Amino acid sequence: MTLVAATGTFDLLHPGHILYLEHSRALGDELVVIVARDVNVRHKPKPILPEEQRLRMVEALKVVDRAVLGEEKDIFRTIELQKPDIITLGYDQHFDEEALAAELFRRGLSPRIVRIEAHEPCPLCGSSRIVARILERFRGRRI
Amino acid sequence: MTLVAATGTFDLLHPGHILYLEHSRALGDELVVIVARDVNVRHKPKPILPEEQRLRMVEALKVVDRAVLGEEKDIFRTIELQKPDIITLGYDQHFDEEALAAELFRRGLSPRIVRIEAHEPCPLCGSSRIVARILERFRGRRI
Repeated sequence: MTLVAATGTFDLLHPGHILYLEHSRALGDELVVIVARDVNVRHKPKPILPEEQRLRMVEALKVVDRAVLGEEKDIFRTIELQKPDIITLGYDQHFDEEALAAELFRRGLSPRIVRIEAHEPCPLCGSSRIVARILERFRGRRI
Repeated sequence: MTLVAATGTFDLLHPGHILYLEHSRALGDELVVIVARDVNVRHKPKPILPEEQRLRMVEALKVVDRAVLGEEKDIFRTIELQKPDIITLGYDQHFDEEALAAELFRRGLSPRIVRIEAHEPCPLCGSSRIVARILERFRGRRI
């Protein structure tokens, strides 16, 4: 049984998320998704949706077997607990594969780390692009 | 085999959509979702996401067996084609049950029409509430 762990914020779900998760799922037999905690999203604007809502939406996807929130204090702890054979990173995720592998190795873990390069080129296949579209649409208008 | 048809725009997916679809699915054996065409959303602001993207996201949900786009010219035609035993309406959908039943009866169809009253009271369980949150967050800021 090969357990794959996919990671991310999954703020406003879009087809790019589905593609990333489908490619991740195809690498093994079971897919667990680790959803980033609100406090740990620091490299981009804070998520629009609270972590519990993001978790619930990820769990609702066909391609996902299980979803969990990451640990607040130690983001590697979730990986220690889940013990995936493979960890996937999205094409635009900011993690450095080598640094991640080194930190996990220090903790006695050596999952394969796979960067999923496939991504959807569609105009609204990105949470920040959806936000930008909303701002364009409603700029200067009362709603 | 009881076929249930759920209907809606499903613009920015949220837990309220999941709850509506779960309650719909529980009424039968198979759930087909009829996703509104862009041109037919007239009673509220136009969807943020194009119809193909909304369709793809609905199809990706565990609770959904099949999803289809509605007919552009005749919204009842999709129901004629799918022949559901039950049609569900969400708690806030603008359709009048009696008018819908009368039009379908005129076409030789008499599905049960069920209003799903259950809904999520959570602060961002509504596409328009998600839009409002984004506008609040970014008002007057460069992104």
